[in-house]
Amino acid sequence: VSDVGSVKGAVVEAVGPHVPADAYFVPGHPLAGTEHSGPDAGFATLFKGRWHVITPLADERPEYAAAVDRLEAFWRALGAEVERMDAERHDVVLAVVSHLPHLIAFNIVAMAEDLESVTEGEVVKYSASGFRDFTRIAASDPTMWRDVFLNNREAVLEVLGRFSEDLAALQRAIRWGDGKLLYDLFERARRMRREVIEAGQDTAAPNWGREN
Amino acid sequence: VSDVGSVKGAVVEAVGPHVPADAYFVPGHPLAGTEHSGPDAGFATLFKGRWHVITPLADERPEYAAAVDRLEAFWRALGAEVERMDAERHDVVLAVVSHLPHLIAFNIVAMAEDLESVTEGEVVKYSASGFRDFTRIAASDPTMWRDVFLNNREAVLEVLGRFSEDLAALQRAIRWGDGKLLYDLFERARRMRREVIEAGQDTAAPNWGREN
Repeated sequence: VSDVGSVKGAVVEAVGPHVPADAYFVPGHPLAGTEHSGPDAGFATLFKGRWHVITPLADERPEYAAAVDRLEAFWRALGAEVERMDAERHDVVLAVVSHLPHLIAFNIVAMAEDLESVTEGEVVKYSASGFRDFTRIAASDPTMWRDVFLNNREAVLEVLGRFSEDLAALQRAIRWGDGKLLYDLFERARRMRREVIEAGQDTAAPNWGREN
Repeated sequence: VSDVGSVKGAVVEAVGPHVPADAYFVPGHPLAGTEHSGPDAGFATLFKGRWHVITPLADERPEYAAAVDRLEAFWRALGAEVERMDAERHDVVLAVVSHLPHLIAFNIVAMAEDLESVTEGEVVKYSASGFRDFTRIAASDPTMWRDVFLNNREAVLEVLGRFSEDLAALQRAIRWGDGKLLYDLFERARRMRREVIEAGQDTAAPNWGREN
């Protein structure tokens, strides 16, 4: 028995106790997909070259180890790269790379929507100046994302706390005109982009190759 | 005399007094470009179909009006769509659609870079789960962006205040398990994506057509 949920600790807790003794529960999470959801959003190469994280339980039976290997072989056959990790670490890492970015995107897009009554459509009109990049992941399925945040609460609140702390420091630097702090931080962020591209995790094409 | 700076109020204040009486200063801002900067980042269709905002001064001379028309014709000849706006409104609108998104992106990417000593490269490795979308605009020129924030301080602090307020409400909803608030807000954000696409401001291709 496996699953494909975005949060692993809560799944282990909820499903674990109900798995019969002769079945093997190996939770998993494919890091694949687009902002679209449902069967129509699938495509043949969906998992190709993407990570699939499996979070095996602490089960010492050799049959369990064999089940984990079988699941790994299954995902590899679909083209995925498989990584094993414990459920708790998965939830923290995903809170950083996925849950927080989605939360931030939802927040800024909803805020801008509130402002549209004041800005009279100007946010949409001029969205190509940066804003539209946030709208893509903010278009993801609201039901799924509600459940992600409710089920990975602790890790999300922890990284969100760090984010807000850092944002407050930036806000202060802007208010007091601390150009050096701003420059150094922006330079650091730029380096991270290079690492993402070097790791083959994004295209180096300017503007992602979008025409406009 | 014109310019292409991202902030207009500060330019009017700094340049305005030095413009000789027989010259006409018409500030402008082309909303075009990619995350790359410098002469090598230019390309022939850079301004095609993109907005160019001009912020004419309160100058009643007919010669001034003629200069504004001439500048508008120049940008239209480069393929841009031209819009006139007052400098103050420009700075508020851009704070929402461009400056705040960049600030948020810089902040989350720098935060994740801090965490990489803990997460051992996992942020980069799994960045395709959402995080990488933020790295593109965080790769923009640090010098230019430092100066944008220092010169559009008031408008940026104002929208940043709203953003933080809204984020605190989301944080509270996660802590207290308020699924309805989360769902409603995510649904609203999703609608905004549709408006951006309908306005022709972004591609509807899933994942922006990126292969992976």
